[in-house]
Amino acid sequence: MLKLFYAPNTCALASHIALEEAGANYESVRLSFADNDQRKPEYLAVNPKGRVPALVTDRGILTETPALLVFIAQTFPNARLAPLDDAFALAEVQAFNSYLCSTVHVAHAHRLRGYRWADDPAAIAAMQKKVPQSVGEAFAVIETKMLKGPWVMGESYSIADPYLFTVSQWLEGDGVDRLRLPKVEDHTRRMLERPAVRRALAAELA
Amino acid sequence: MLKLFYAPNTCALASHIALEEAGANYESVRLSFADNDQRKPEYLAVNPKGRVPALVTDRGILTETPALLVFIAQTFPNARLAPLDDAFALAEVQAFNSYLCSTVHVAHAHRLRGYRWADDPAAIAAMQKKVPQSVGEAFAVIETKMLKGPWVMGESYSIADPYLFTVSQWLEGDGVDRLRLPKVEDHTRRMLERPAVRRALAAELA
Repeated sequence: MLKLFYAPNTCALASHIALEEAGANYESVRLSFADNDQRKPEYLAVNPKGRVPALVTDRGILTETPALLVFIAQTFPNARLAPLDDAFALAEVQAFNSYLCSTVHVAHAHRLRGYRWADDPAAIAAMQKKVPQSVGEAFAVIETKMLKGPWVMGESYSIADPYLFTVSQWLEGDGVDRLRLPKVEDHTRRMLERPAVRRALAAELA
Repeated sequence: MLKLFYAPNTCALASHIALEEAGANYESVRLSFADNDQRKPEYLAVNPKGRVPALVTDRGILTETPALLVFIAQTFPNARLAPLDDAFALAEVQAFNSYLCSTVHVAHAHRLRGYRWADDPAAIAAMQKKVPQSVGEAFAVIETKMLKGPWVMGESYSIADPYLFTVSQWLEGDGVDRLRLPKVEDHTRRMLERPAVRRALAAELA
């Protein structure tokens, strides 16, 4: 059986939702970042990178959200979570997810994880100060150029949707005014209507 | 015909090599970052994000290295550049590539692109100072935990290999001692023996 390691309010929510959408038989294991669980030896044995998510499968352990999302889509093809047989359409989904992980999530991470990239407290403070702008600009590209609506890829719901929903959850904390992102707002609202999303959120918040 | 927009010494090299490995019929278009070509209107019409690579296809334009690499593998299946029909094995490839784009490349980018995440010149200098450590630690994980050898995924060459080779090209500039990374060194040496790699490098350096 699949086992998902996650922490609340992290990008692991995307994989959590995808597993629910897929109707997967899986177990979830919560880590507490407040207790630094992700740096404890027992978790580093699961994921030496000390991050979530990690997905334990019968063939080994997988990490990194974009990889998990395609894995879930491919493992549960009946859920139709990605255009697996259309190279161009799949690349569009992957490009969106790659933008989230390497640009949007990275901009966000400068608010609480600035120590990854500088030691000087003043530099870390300077990074925090720019987060509303850098995250805001990244989301403006999503709003105006990338999000087709109603779902990320248009009429077809895909693994890009739980990932966008997850990253959108951080907007307020990052100091970005959601009212300037009406398409993203509409996307969040639609996502919250989905039973799979509600189940994943309920599990993480329980 | 496919058309690849690239700039020398950027991550676009990974897709350039993959196209050569695939035997693709494609055209390449060089941008000069020194001339800020990536911010000119004619290129922003191709990729509004103002980054490379971008791949023009007959169905539209694709961006983001991990997406392009799987697209190339899927479009040219005879080149066997990814385990497309094995969800677990493909996820391992994707996890590796995702680590490169969201952790390794991001750490590297703090050397010359710190302005993305802070405005204060002292903060940007503090970021530059930490690059040897952050890139070095990310590559230590690759060296000790991820690179199976001789290729990233073991005996099978895949789209993870041109991407690792590309990012490894930046080690010296980032102040990381390559002698501490013997497996990565060996990987670079093997890559340089491949005709496809030589062709892509020759084209970019011409």
